[in-house]
Amino acid sequence: MTERIDGRGFKDLRPITIERQYIKYAEGSVRISFGDTKVICTASVEDKVPQFLRGTGQGWVTAEYSMLPRATATRSPRDISKGRLNGRSSEIQRLIGRSLRAGVDLTQLGERTIWIDCDVIQADGGTRTAAITGGFVALVDALRTLHKNALLQGLPITSFVAAVSVGKVDGNIMTDLCYEEDSRAEVDCNVIMNDKGKFIEIQGTGEAGTFSRQELNLLLDAAEEAIRRLFAIQRECLELTEEEVRLIESCSRDSVC
Amino acid sequence: MTERIDGRGFKDLRPITIERQYIKYAEGSVRISFGDTKVICTASVEDKVPQFLRGTGQGWVTAEYSMLPRATATRSPRDISKGRLNGRSSEIQRLIGRSLRAGVDLTQLGERTIWIDCDVIQADGGTRTAAITGGFVALVDALRTLHKNALLQGLPITSFVAAVSVGKVDGNIMTDLCYEEDSRAEVDCNVIMNDKGKFIEIQGTGEAGTFSRQELNLLLDAAEEAIRRLFAIQRECLELTEEEVRLIESCSRDSVC
Amino acid sequence: MTERIDGRGFKDLRPITIERQYIKYAEGSVRISFGDTKVICTASVEDKVPQFLRGTGQGWVTAEYSMLPRATATRSPRDISKGRLNGRSSEIQRLIGRSLRAGVDLTQLGERTIWIDCDVIQADGGTRTAAITGGFVALVDALRTLHKNALLQGLPITSFVAAVSVGKVDGNIMTDLCYEEDSRAEVDCNVIMNDKGKFIEIQGTGEAGTFSRQELNLLLDAAEEAIRRLFAIQRECLELTEEEVRLIESCSRDSVC
Amino acid sequence: MTERIDGRGFKDLRPITIERQYIKYAEGSVRISFGDTKVICTASVEDKVPQFLRGTGQGWVTAEYSMLPRATATRSPRDISKGRLNGRSSEIQRLIGRSLRAGVDLTQLGERTIWIDCDVIQADGGTRTAAITGGFVALVDALRTLHKNALLQGLPITSFVAAVSVGKVDGNIMTDLCYEEDSRAEVDCNVIMNDKGKFIEIQGTGEAGTFSRQELNLLLDAAEEAIRRLFAIQRECLELTEEEVRLIESCSRDSVC
Amino acid sequence: MTERIDGRGFKDLRPITIERQYIKYAEGSVRISFGDTKVICTASVEDKVPQFLRGTGQGWVTAEYSMLPRATATRSPRDISKGRLNGRSSEIQRLIGRSLRAGVDLTQLGERTIWIDCDVIQADGGTRTAAITGGFVALVDALRTLHKNALLQGLPITSFVAAVSVGKVDGNIMTDLCYEEDSRAEVDCNVIMNDKGKFIEIQGTGEAGTFSRQELNLLLDAAEEAIRRLFAIQRECLELTEEEVRLIESCSRDSVC
Amino acid sequence: MTERIDGRGFKDLRPITIERQYIKYAEGSVRISFGDTKVICTASVEDKVPQFLRGTGQGWVTAEYSMLPRATATRSPRDISKGRLNGRSSEIQRLIGRSLRAGVDLTQLGERTIWIDCDVIQADGGTRTAAITGGFVALVDALRTLHKNALLQGLPITSFVAAVSVGKVDGNIMTDLCYEEDSRAEVDCNVIMNDKGKFIEIQGTGEAGTFSRQELNLLLDAAEEAIRRLFAIQRECLELTEEEVRLIESCSRDSVC
Repeated sequence: MTERIDGRGFKDLRPITIERQYIKYAEGSVRISFGDTKVICTASVEDKVPQFLRGTGQGWVTAEYSMLPRATATRSPRDISKGRLNGRSSEIQRLIGRSLRAGVDLTQLGERTIWIDCDVIQADGGTRTAAITGGFVALVDALRTLHKNALLQGLPITSFVAAVSVGKVDGNIMTDLCYEEDSRAEVDCNVIMNDKGKFIEIQGTGEAGTFSRQELNLLLDAAEEAIRRLFAIQRECLELTEEEVRLIESCSRDSVC
Repeated sequence: MTERIDGRGFKDLRPITIERQYIKYAEGSVRISFGDTKVICTASVEDKVPQFLRGTGQGWVTAEYSMLPRATATRSPRDISKGRLNGRSSEIQRLIGRSLRAGVDLTQLGERTIWIDCDVIQADGGTRTAAITGGFVALVDALRTLHKNALLQGLPITSFVAAVSVGKVDGNIMTDLCYEEDSRAEVDCNVIMNDKGKFIEIQGTGEAGTFSRQELNLLLDAAEEAIRRLFAIQRECLELTEEEVRLIESCSRDSVC
Repeated sequence: MTERIDGRGFKDLRPITIERQYIKYAEGSVRISFGDTKVICTASVEDKVPQFLRGTGQGWVTAEYSMLPRATATRSPRDISKGRLNGRSSEIQRLIGRSLRAGVDLTQLGERTIWIDCDVIQADGGTRTAAITGGFVALVDALRTLHKNALLQGLPITSFVAAVSVGKVDGNIMTDLCYEEDSRAEVDCNVIMNDKGKFIEIQGTGEAGTFSRQELNLLLDAAEEAIRRLFAIQRECLELTEEEVRLIESCSRDSVC
Repeated sequence: MTERIDGRGFKDLRPITIERQYIKYAEGSVRISFGDTKVICTASVEDKVPQFLRGTGQGWVTAEYSMLPRATATRSPRDISKGRLNGRSSEIQRLIGRSLRAGVDLTQLGERTIWIDCDVIQADGGTRTAAITGGFVALVDALRTLHKNALLQGLPITSFVAAVSVGKVDGNIMTDLCYEEDSRAEVDCNVIMNDKGKFIEIQGTGEAGTFSRQELNLLLDAAEEAIRRLFAIQRECLELTEEEVRLIESCSRDSVC
Repeated sequence: MTERIDGRGFKDLRPITIERQYIKYAEGSVRISFGDTKVICTASVEDKVPQFLRGTGQGWVTAEYSMLPRATATRSPRDISKGRLNGRSSEIQRLIGRSLRAGVDLTQLGERTIWIDCDVIQADGGTRTAAITGGFVALVDALRTLHKNALLQGLPITSFVAAVSVGKVDGNIMTDLCYEEDSRAEVDCNVIMNDKGKFIEIQGTGEAGTFSRQELNLLLDAAEEAIRRLFAIQRECLELTEEEVRLIESCSRDSVC
Repeated sequence: MTERIDGRGFKDLRPITIERQYIKYAEGSVRISFGDTKVICTASVEDKVPQFLRGTGQGWVTAEYSMLPRATATRSPRDISKGRLNGRSSEIQRLIGRSLRAGVDLTQLGERTIWIDCDVIQADGGTRTAAITGGFVALVDALRTLHKNALLQGLPITSFVAAVSVGKVDGNIMTDLCYEEDSRAEVDCNVIMNDKGKFIEIQGTGEAGTFSRQELNLLLDAAEEAIRRLFAIQRECLELTEEEVRLIESCSRDSVC
């Protein structure tokens, strides 16, 4: 076997598209596609913070994740019809929130919460990595909106954040698994990185198998390479002005992490 | 005042677009826009019916309605975060279900449920009328899918169904209110009709005012005219074959209602 | 067929009784019967308003609706045993709230909420119209209590509010449908009006059929006639003093709607 | 102090009224009053039993208890608006169920559940004892309905069941406390007995005090005396035929308990 | 039959052990065993009180009760997986709270709540009486912690509180029933007393039977005797200093109850 | 700085104790301590499987995780009091389930579910790794119980499973973080491995920092070393017979993963 289901090479990402300003009301919003996986990400600014941050002057970034009932091959009942958030969504939205916070200097955000809502319109594998990658673009746009409205002096972005899934399928290391690959994978690894080449989070799981240190290293090599391409796509679609680039670099340089 | 906020005439609909086959998995799906109001409607076929229909040989059509958190000017918390379906959504999804059932011969559907999921991506007034109008197109496509797969002999559509909101705003009778008009309206009336010129449901509300019989008649005149245009748009986008048109006419002629 | 199940003429209401001061604690309370449909309506005054009204000086009227488990031919589980308010109740209580607010000048109520609780003891069709008609009497009594206790200067009632169901059953236009008629009806229409002859809300539904403009007009004619009789019954049972009549007329004259 | 708030003697019950056949649909139903405490009790027959009894041939009796929001001096939110059954209601309905089961020979009931719904319309102390006393009458009527419809050969009643509250208030032992007495009571004791002079349940609580064995004995003396009067009232209102009396005596004699 | 399942005499308690300071974080905590029944009780101090006590200067004691899923012979689903607190737990935790409040002078506690969490690790009958008896020890330790930290001047304990179950099993009066005895019991009685020889609460239930006054007296005799032994065990394990004994006696003497 | 808070070396585990047969009813149960972190793990066998496995002949292992309210420095409300499972617990219990399934040959388990309940009695960091390590021992004991009762021919254990947390704290790589270290950690990594030296899951998170590939390698080195010690502790406490060891080796050899 020299090829993948859809003809891609093992290291290829699916076609990535990011449509900005997708929802007219949101401070930032995108529709991102990783192939047939399509996610609407909105960034909404709220002028208060969770209890534990009140009075600290610091802000917060949090995420919610959900799938439309027919985003999948068979219809799934809505969470509300079962009266509870499903465990998978809960786990994913916590991951998205942690990952995006890693790219923001919360101390410079002021006592504001930015809500990142990731709603999967169509799911074909990699919804959480698309949500992080697209959510970051929406987040940057929301910060730009605050800056344009003179509510923020700088752009408190310490690094870009993007994510990709990699896995071992039929013995091969592959990048950006689609659903069919994902469900056949022996090992599945979600990797979230920043553009300084550092890891923010690694979640490697081998439910249908296990993996050695050597395989982990091959998976991480593939992920690093793919994420570098995602940063380029994010930058291109963001169309930052020179001034904005300068503000981000300044924040990034000063921030400790 | 001779014009509306967006320059339309009083009787004009906003630009209506219907994009079919929007979600690859669903038996029928559209993204419908009434101006800036955008709704994804999917029709999903399930091979069972609610308890009260088991063993009757009859099918069912039901709807669920929800808004993405940032479909509105300010972010609304998800239903699941409050643990309950909000009253407005509950009321609207019941209306959508009743309206669409009025266009289907459930006795010819077989013991199947068609779930119509209406998820509002962006809300600018008239979300329920867009959901009904678009949901009907998704429903027809789901029935065509069943027919193509030889699971249905005919197309059990007794009439086309579409809906529009009309209202009295600043003393003027207007068609297809946008959010700003809707929130200023003295009277707001949602009208659901079939293409035989009959009413399926009328919901006229005068919370910020009341209305006379004469005003009701003007509202209904405006609604009838607009809904005729919606039927034309539905038909055009559906691109029915001659055979399909014949099957629908046959069902429509035979059905009592 | 020249008669109805219970011997009434097509335009007759069932026997209507309203027993005031039914619950000793409530600021206003009635037990209202539309034939075998029996509803306890209480009006409770609370000295605060929902979030969106705080600081506006304006009051609020809201309703809750529920049925005792054995109000119906077969026992229905309580909402709490299923963990959620059922959709029908949610829809009805929103209608009751909107309808009653249409008869009150909320700006003169002060920052108070009046809760109208409508609990159906026995259901035989028309529970929502009985709830509105009886709820209005309880509401007036609660306002009188506030006035007697010198908490309100006037009686901020802009118009009387009452409701009736009308329908087309076996081809005949009928008033105040009982359950058996309602379940056989081709068209069912709930009409809420004020005593100035204006409509507050019209909900016409043709699930088992559809209806023409001409039929709608016949339905509304029947409703108007019946509601006039309901206003007389409300007035009679309320036993308003001349002073109270004067206060209501004064509010009604000044109010815009 | 020689008298009680409402002029009763210490051992007097409040006026007790039991209105049978209060809800036309229920197999048994009453509205019972203990003074200003008013409870609607319905008995509904369902042709199945809980999981743990399936296939045993044995029946079940269970109860649900709730208060209308304005049954009390200040309005209480409905359970459903908080999403959970309140602890007090849960405790009371379990007590009602246990108490009523003690008067029925479940082995002769067949695989049926009798649901006793106790809805407090107005609360003035002693709602649980009124619910048990009235619920028993509704239960007997439901059994008579089954017997009349030839679904039961006998009347599987092993003993009558009634209940009363007694307490120590301002140092005096009092019977059938009203709310004001109850809230001032040092000791409050709910006693459920059968007409063979045996206790079914005793719940003596001294939250604002404690009690000695001697006081307990005085409380139980008062309760026994009052409950004997309640049995007379139950019998009188039930208007049993001689045949029905014979059937109950036969069951009561044979049953072990 | 002269002996019990486990060889005890009819009046014997099972082996009772109380391990204090079981959880390092809690202001008071024990693991108590009544034979194979094992309960962890923690007492947690919170610096606020429920709404109805705010501003009164008075404190509150409340309890929560739960069982680990496999505390019983077959696994029970967690409450959260059913979305509601089960009725039995709700009833028991209310009993624990009432019982413990009867031993504390809440007016001297300050505006604090002490939460008593009783988590049953292994259940073999008598979990509520073990929870009360152990919960009281945890409560005393929490008060001592407050006193040691100079947050309380005295030790506001008006009396010791302990509880035991007694019952009639196969015609014999028995003390401290284990699960097998409890499930065979004709009568089951939970008795909560203070060390002044007074009853705080009595819950006698005869679901599988009924009981006479004479039997009640025998049950209470057995309970009194057993509870005296529990007080000795509580005192011994508490290892109160002379100063602490003096403070408790002083509070006990002054308090009214 | 050459030492840790509690005097351990950077690579040292805290004292690990595993007490087997902790709950007498469960097929397998332990109380495991990682220092002051204490978790009760029970393994309960149920004779059915989730819907998606019915009829496949295959079994299932699933986990639930919860903390007692006072397992932590300040009391946390129970999930049930908020009506929903908290997101963190949901995420952890999914991890425990996946990890333990990786050590079992589900095809040899028969159509049974083994429920692993992990209840944290006292939390001081590393609760999920203690739960996995202890849960595995309880799981093995449950399988032995099935084997002893002749319900399983072999012992379907494909490999031992254990877990440890490692992290970077103040720049140092440390093993088995206690709470204070965990809350100061720049990077926190939970590593789950089997005794064949393979990874089952890696969750590396850098919320307060990020990490390089080199740091990841140091973290994994530390984890591997610690987990080898955990396998020795598991084996020692399990006291497997020679026959049992033989059965496990046989399964482990044959199984693919």
